[in-house]
Amino acid sequence: MAKNKGPRRPRAETPKGFRDYFGAEVTARKAMLDKIAAVYHRYGFDALETSGVETVEALGKFLPDVDRPNEGVFAWEEDGDWLALRYDLTAPLARVAAQYRNDLPTPYRRYAMGPVWRNEKPGPGRFRQFYQCDADTVGAASVAADAEICAMLADALEAVGIERGDYVIRVNNRKVLNGVLEAADLWFPDDPEREAERRGVVLRAIDKVDRLGIRGVEELLGIGRTDDSGDFTKGAQLKFEQRERILMLIKGDRWANNLVGFDYLVGESETGKQGVEELEQISDLLEAQGYGPDRIIIDPSVVRGLGYYTGPVYEAELTFEILDEKGRPRQFGSVAGGGRYDDLVKRFTGQAVPATGVSIGVDRLLAALAMKGRLDTSAQGPVVVTVMDRTRMTDYMSMVNELRAAGIRAEMYLGNPKNFGNQLKYADKRQSPVAIIQGEDEAAREVVQVKDLILGAKLAQDATLEEWKSQPAQVEVNRADLVATVREIMGRHG
Amino acid sequence: MAKNKGPRRPRAETPKGFRDYFGAEVTARKAMLDKIAAVYHRYGFDALETSGVETVEALGKFLPDVDRPNEGVFAWEEDGDWLALRYDLTAPLARVAAQYRNDLPTPYRRYAMGPVWRNEKPGPGRFRQFYQCDADTVGAASVAADAEICAMLADALEAVGIERGDYVIRVNNRKVLNGVLEAADLWFPDDPEREAERRGVVLRAIDKVDRLGIRGVEELLGIGRTDDSGDFTKGAQLKFEQRERILMLIKGDRWANNLVGFDYLVGESETGKQGVEELEQISDLLEAQGYGPDRIIIDPSVVRGLGYYTGPVYEAELTFEILDEKGRPRQFGSVAGGGRYDDLVKRFTGQAVPATGVSIGVDRLLAALAMKGRLDTSAQGPVVVTVMDRTRMTDYMSMVNELRAAGIRAEMYLGNPKNFGNQLKYADKRQSPVAIIQGEDEAAREVVQVKDLILGAKLAQDATLEEWKSQPAQVEVNRADLVATVREIMGRHG
Repeated sequence: MAKNKGPRRPRAETPKGFRDYFGAEVTARKAMLDKIAAVYHRYGFDALETSGVETVEALGKFLPDVDRPNEGVFAWEEDGDWLALRYDLTAPLARVAAQYRNDLPTPYRRYAMGPVWRNEKPGPGRFRQFYQCDADTVGAASVAADAEICAMLADALEAVGIERGDYVIRVNNRKVLNGVLEAADLWFPDDPEREAERRGVVLRAIDKVDRLGIRGVEELLGIGRTDDSGDFTKGAQLKFEQRERILMLIKGDRWANNLVGFDYLVGESETGKQGVEELEQISDLLEAQGYGPDRIIIDPSVVRGLGYYTGPVYEAELTFEILDEKGRPRQFGSVAGGGRYDDLVKRFTGQAVPATGVSIGVDRLLAALAMKGRLDTSAQGPVVVTVMDRTRMTDYMSMVNELRAAGIRAEMYLGNPKNFGNQLKYADKRQSPVAIIQGEDEAAREVVQVKDLILGAKLAQDATLEEWKSQPAQVEVNRADLVATVREIMGRHG
Repeated sequence: MAKNKGPRRPRAETPKGFRDYFGAEVTARKAMLDKIAAVYHRYGFDALETSGVETVEALGKFLPDVDRPNEGVFAWEEDGDWLALRYDLTAPLARVAAQYRNDLPTPYRRYAMGPVWRNEKPGPGRFRQFYQCDADTVGAASVAADAEICAMLADALEAVGIERGDYVIRVNNRKVLNGVLEAADLWFPDDPEREAERRGVVLRAIDKVDRLGIRGVEELLGIGRTDDSGDFTKGAQLKFEQRERILMLIKGDRWANNLVGFDYLVGESETGKQGVEELEQISDLLEAQGYGPDRIIIDPSVVRGLGYYTGPVYEAELTFEILDEKGRPRQFGSVAGGGRYDDLVKRFTGQAVPATGVSIGVDRLLAALAMKGRLDTSAQGPVVVTVMDRTRMTDYMSMVNELRAAGIRAEMYLGNPKNFGNQLKYADKRQSPVAIIQGEDEAAREVVQVKDLILGAKLAQDATLEEWKSQPAQVEVNRADLVATVREIMGRHG
C-alpha cells in the first residue's frame, strides 16, 4: 500500500521571496495609504494606476541604481515581445508622460501606490514584491514644485500619525555639491578619461561619510585609506585646498538653514550659485506657508541619495530613537526620499521634461508607526454567535443579522457545532470581543448569555477572586436586549 | 543630418491588452471596493492579500474553465522554478488554506481584492489585467455558509448603490440538476465511455437554453438539431420521459421559490433529495434574516454557471434595462456569481475541505453604476491659484496653503507663468471649479479676483445677456475673505 502513493502533490508554498498579508496587515497598510492619498489629493495630485506589466523596452533595461543589464527585473518573452513586471513606479510614469503627452495637463501632478517587483536575492525583511507610494510633478521647472512636495510630505507624515518633532525633512541641492566640486577645480579638462575616473573616486568617497566619518573621507580624497582588514584603497590625490573645500561641505549639521557660507564654498561656479539660489527660494516658499525648521530643514551638507538627481533633493528622517538589533539606541532614520530628475521622458520623445517627486518607503513607515503604537493592528474580531442547537440555526442567524444591521461585526459559528469547546477556541483565535450563547433552556426563557471574552481573558490571567465576583464576564440578558448589551460591552473596551 | 538619427527611441506604449487608469477611474473603483470591503468586514470576513506571483506548481497548470495546459497564464522560468502571475484569487486562496492550515481559524472567512492576469487574446473591453473581488468561506460544510454569502452579496450591491428591485440573486444547487438527471435514468452503468459521452451531450444541451430556447434543447436531447447554416448536431437520443423530466427543470421562472414540484422531478435520487433539502434550508435561513424574494430567489431552473461547482450556486443579476449595441432594450445581466466547490486544498494536502465563495465582476459592476449615475467620476479638479507676478510666488503659495488647510483641494500654477491664457487653459483641463487671480494692482489693494469657472463655462455656453449681468462669474473680494468666498462658490455647485 505504502508504495502506491499516486502522483506527487504540489507544494503549498509562496515562491521564494514572496509573502502573504493577513487581516490587519492588509487593512493597516490600506488605512495608512488612504490617509496619504487624501493629503496628496488635497494638494491637487491625481491618482494614476498603471498595470503591473510593461514592455522591457518601455521600462528600460536596468534599475536606476544598478548597471547590470536585464538583472533586477522579472521578464519573459511573449509572442516575440519582452514583457516585465514594473520594478518601480517612476519608469511607468515616464512611459505614461510620454504616451499621453498631448492629453495630460502640464504640469502633471500624479500619485501612485501599488506593488512593484524586484528580481533580487531575498533576505530577512527583504521581499521581491513590495509596495511603493510615489508623488511626482512632471513638467514644472520651478523649484516651487520641489517646495510643494516637501510640504506635502510633512503633511502626509503627520496625517498618518508621526508627530511634529518626531520627523525632519532635509532639503539639499545636487547643484551645490557640483558647484563645490567645480570650485575645488578637481578635474582634468583635457583628459576626459582621467576626469571620469577621479569624479568616481571623489563621489564614492563623499557617499561613505556616514560609514567612515570625516576622517575616512579625508583619506579617500587624499592619498588613500587602509581599512581594518589591511586592504588599501587608492585615494583621489586631491590637494589640501581641494580637500578642505569638500570636507567643509560635508561637516554635518552646521550648515542647516544657514546658506551664508556657501557663497564662499561654491566660489565662482555658476552651477553652484544657482544651487544656493534655488535652496533660498525653496526656503522662502516654505517659510511663507509656515513650514519652518521644526519640520523642514535646508541642509546643503546632506550628501546621501544624490544618485541620479539633478537639482533639489529631499529626505524625510524619523528622529525618534529605537533600539538596534544589539539593543543600542539609534535614530529610526529615513522613511522617504526624492528629488528633481531631468530626462524623465527624454528616452521616449527626445524632449527633456523636468520632473520632481518623492517616494515613501511603505514598509519602513508602517514599521515606524507600529513602533510608535500608532498602527491599528488589532484584529477587531467579530462577535461570535455560537450554535448550541443545530435545529435552531435560523434563530442564531437572526441574532447575527441584528448585530450586523447595527454595524457590529458579527458571525455565526459555521464549523461543526458538536464540540462547544471548539466554538470558544475559534472565538479566541478570531480575537472575538464577545460570544453569544443560547441553549434550549435560554431559548425557552427568551434570554441569551453574553460572554465578555476580553474581560474573561483578563480575569483568567491575573484577577483576584474579588474582582472576578464583582465583574462577571458572562451575563444573562433578555433576547431583546442583545444588541444593546453587546454594544455596551464593546464600548467598555474601547 | 537626417541620416544621423542616433539610437532608436523606445516606444511609449502599454503592452498589448494592458491599460492605464487615471484620476477618477482609480478613485471611483477604490470607493466601490471600499464599500464592499466594509460589508464583508462586518460579516466577519478577513482581508487577505497574496502576491501577484505564484509558482506554476501551486497555481495548477490551467484555468478552471480552460483545458489547454500552460495557456491562459503569464509564466516564466526563474532559476529552475516556473513562476506565473495569478489568473484569479481562488487558486492563491487554495494555496494559502493549505500552507497555513494549522494557523488559520476554521472556518476561515476571507475576502480579497486585486488585479489578476490572463494571457489571452485581448479584445474590445477585454484586458489582460483586471480586478477581481472575492469572498470565500473555507471549511464550512453547512449551507448556512452559502446563505450567508448570498445575504452579504445583496448587502454589498446595495452598499455600492444598486437599489433594491434593481437586482436579484438567484440560488440553485448543482445537486438538483444531478438528481434530476439521475432520476431520468440516463446513463449506461456498464459502459463508462458511452456514459461520459452522453453526459457531455446532455450538459452541453442544457447549457444552451439561453441561446436556443426550450425547443432547441429538446432537439439536442432527442435525435439532434439542424442549425441555421444547415449543420446537424447529433442529439443525446433520450426517450420522451427522460427528455420531459429535464425540460420541466429548465422551463424558466415557474419554479422560483417553489420547491414543491421538485420532489417529483428528482424522484428517488438521494443526491437530488439532498439538493432540494439544502435549498429549503438556505431559503429558511435567508427568510429568518429578512432576505425575501425581492432580493434573493431560490430558483432550481437556473442552469447557467454550474461548471465546476458541487452544491449551491448563486448569481447576482441586475434587472434594470439598458440598450444593447443595436439600441434594443435588454436586462443588464450578471455582475457576480459563485457557489460551493470541494477539493479546494485537496490538490495540496489530500484532504477534502468544503468551501463556498462569490466573485464580483468589478468592471461589470462599475459599468452598471456608471449607467445608473451612481459613480462619482467627476474629476473634482483643484482650485488653481494663478501666477500673475513671478516675484510674488510666496504670496500665491500662502493662498494655496490657506485653502488646503481649510480642506479645499488647491494648487498654484507651476508651469511657465508667462502666458496667462495657458494658465486658464490648464485650469480648464483640470476641471477646476475656481481660479484665483491677483496682479500687482490687486495686491496693492489687498484684494483677489475669484473666478467661478463652472458658472463661467455655463454662461459661455447658453446664458442670455440678462443672466450674465445678474450672476457675475468673477468677483473681487478682500484677500482675507479668499477661503470663505471659494467655499461659498463651491457649495453653490454642490
